[in-house]
Amino acid sequence: MRYDIAIVGSGPAGLSAAINAKIRNKNIVVFGNESLSNKLVKAPSVDNYLGFYDISGEELKNKFKEHIESLGIEVNNNKVNNIYAMGEYFALMSGNETYEATTVILATGVEYARPIKGEEEFLGKGVGYCATCDAPLYRDKKVAVIGYNKESEEEANFLSEIASKTYFIPMYKEGLMRSSNTLDETIEVIHDRPVQINGDKLVNKISFKEKEINVDGVFVIKDSASPKSLVPGIETEGAHIIVDINMKTNIPGCFAAGDCVGKPYSYIKSAGQGQIAALNAVSYLDKLKIQNKL
Amino acid sequence: MRYDIAIVGSGPAGLSAAINAKIRNKNIVVFGNESLSNKLVKAPSVDNYLGFYDISGEELKNKFKEHIESLGIEVNNNKVNNIYAMGEYFALMSGNETYEATTVILATGVEYARPIKGEEEFLGKGVGYCATCDAPLYRDKKVAVIGYNKESEEEANFLSEIASKTYFIPMYKEGLMRSSNTLDETIEVIHDRPVQINGDKLVNKISFKEKEINVDGVFVIKDSASPKSLVPGIETEGAHIIVDINMKTNIPGCFAAGDCVGKPYSYIKSAGQGQIAALNAVSYLDKLKIQNKL
Ligand SMILES: Cc1cc2nc3c(=O)[nH]c(=O)nc-3n(C[C@H](O)[C@H](O)[C@H](O)COP(=O)(O)OP(=O)(O)OC[C@H]3O[C@@H](n4cnc5c(N)ncnc54)[C@H](O)[C@@H]3O)c2cc1C
Ligand SMILES: Cc1cc2nc3c(=O)[nH]c(=O)nc-3n(C[C@H](O)[C@H](O)[C@H](O)COP(=O)(O)OP(=O)(O)OC[C@H]3O[C@@H](n4cnc5c(N)ncnc54)[C@H](O)[C@@H]3O)c2cc1C
Repeated sequence: MRYDIAIVGSGPAGLSAAINAKIRNKNIVVFGNESLSNKLVKAPSVDNYLGFYDISGEELKNKFKEHIESLGIEVNNNKVNNIYAMGEYFALMSGNETYEATTVILATGVEYARPIKGEEEFLGKGVGYCATCDAPLYRDKKVAVIGYNKESEEEANFLSEIASKTYFIPMYKEGLMRSSNTLDETIEVIHDRPVQINGDKLVNKISFKEKEINVDGVFVIKDSASPKSLVPGIETEGAHIIVDINMKTNIPGCFAAGDCVGKPYSYIKSAGQGQIAALNAVSYLDKLKIQNKL
Repeated sequence: MRYDIAIVGSGPAGLSAAINAKIRNKNIVVFGNESLSNKLVKAPSVDNYLGFYDISGEELKNKFKEHIESLGIEVNNNKVNNIYAMGEYFALMSGNETYEATTVILATGVEYARPIKGEEEFLGKGVGYCATCDAPLYRDKKVAVIGYNKESEEEANFLSEIASKTYFIPMYKEGLMRSSNTLDETIEVIHDRPVQINGDKLVNKISFKEKEINVDGVFVIKDSASPKSLVPGIETEGAHIIVDINMKTNIPGCFAAGDCVGKPYSYIKSAGQGQIAALNAVSYLDKLKIQNKL
């Protein structure tokens, strides 16, 4: 089965894209997570989304949830790890599944946290963003998970079944309390800030403020990976995907919206761009249909 | 007194710009009209504004109204007729008043109605968009008002005090019923579609499907005038103002958002762009402040 539009991200950009695509009767799949957007939920009070004022992020999330549910839109709680442009369609890799879609809308947000020293340098040389993808490489080896969100605990648990030793380095508040996490007993939690990922050709250790640990692999689990590691060949400027005013990227059929295309980082800008991306994906599909008839 | 930001238009683009500028503590003035946006009020049901569903345009307007009121934002119910870039600031002409602002955000929407044959050709040669501006030229002459909205009735009433004869040609539903309009008794209402505005060097008549009338001047009163007639020197493509991804026009300090910058014509896209325009106007102001300190 091939979807018309695959939407990657369930923040305001992705959800606005989803409702607009759905209203246009397109066959869509939306990837994201249960809380829709961790950033959305965290906002204590939102004043700048025209039509709502003095509303909490949590309440706004519920409004968004009601809206998508009213249209029968479901969010697939699976991370997309890689997206390949195959010419006629896109292949989206998520865990062990491959999804096909004629167009893609990237609405992945951005990671506000700066990369750790060495993280980018050793990417693919021991540093990875997807445990489920690369776990087999670390059978009976030592790995560390640097986790920026609750979901990273699952990745750590999964790795602990394969690796000889798994460290977990929580970079988010709740993760710091053993009582509130859901980690396997065998995982060693390190309560210290990682300062640098070191290595020679491949990663071999992580330095902290106070100590060092030896590892063969490091998984950095953030809400949003860098666009280039998600979509090979996509043009970026710094952390942002380059788009035109119609939210088109350099790859035909691939659109992007929200924080991932640049500042300002905000809800209604993201939602507005999500709509533009969806409507342009719709007209891209319509043009394809006419071409195929000729 | 010089405003930091003048916002021209009170639809979703203008209002979103206003709340974002206000939150950033800028000194703003918003021009528009009492109903905020005739287009907004007309929508029977809106489904594609993330967070609201199955809401009428009227209800959405009320949500917007509450939001701006919560921030103490008022809408100045005066049309802006011309905007001149003076270098250090912009001069906005509205009726007999001149307003000054360091930056301008154009959020005027677009007129969906096509121009009448001859309208563009005779612009400035008998065709005008602002009765209050050009009325003195037509003392004791014959004029016609082609009115696309209720407010055009006021322009006709004003002209009827000066001109020897005033025709009113309603292009909107309610205007067709004498009972529901507020026109002066001396004004002749023509219930026919204007087909062409004719003339030699200057306008001299209007042709209808069934008849013709001789006139010296024609006022076409729409919600939104063409950007070029509003802001001399602004770059456009067709009916749309050219902007970059930050909603900057070709004139430094002048930003634009919403329908007036292009399709899709829709609420949340307009609101999103209004926010982008406001935040970029704010950083433009901040940069100016630093420069002036140096
Ligand atoms: C504490 C805080 C307060 C804020 N307050 C405000 C405010 O008051 N007003 C305002 O306008 N903005 C505010 N913001 C900014 C706002 O949260 C963001 O601008 C907005 O959420 C961006 O929307 P988005 O859809 O682009 O991305 P996000 O909301 O970041 O959503 C992206 C989603 O996509 C998912 N995702 C990413 N990659 C993948 C993948 N490969 N596969 C599957 N899913 C993926 C992520 O997990 C995430 O759920 C605040 C942010 C924070 C952190
Ligand atoms: C019947 C109908 C139904 C619609 N339904 C939907 C829908 O369901 N969903 C959707 O997303 N969109 C819908 N739209 C489109 C939507 O109304 C527009 O895209 C949106 O209103 C554009 O917002 P804007 O702020 O750019 O301009 P507008 O809403 O057009 O507002 C511009 C305002 O600026 C004022 N203005 C213009 N020039 C001047 C000036 N020189 N001085 C002072 N004031 C000025 C105008 O009077 C107007 O009030 C609908 C439109 C119509 C007509």
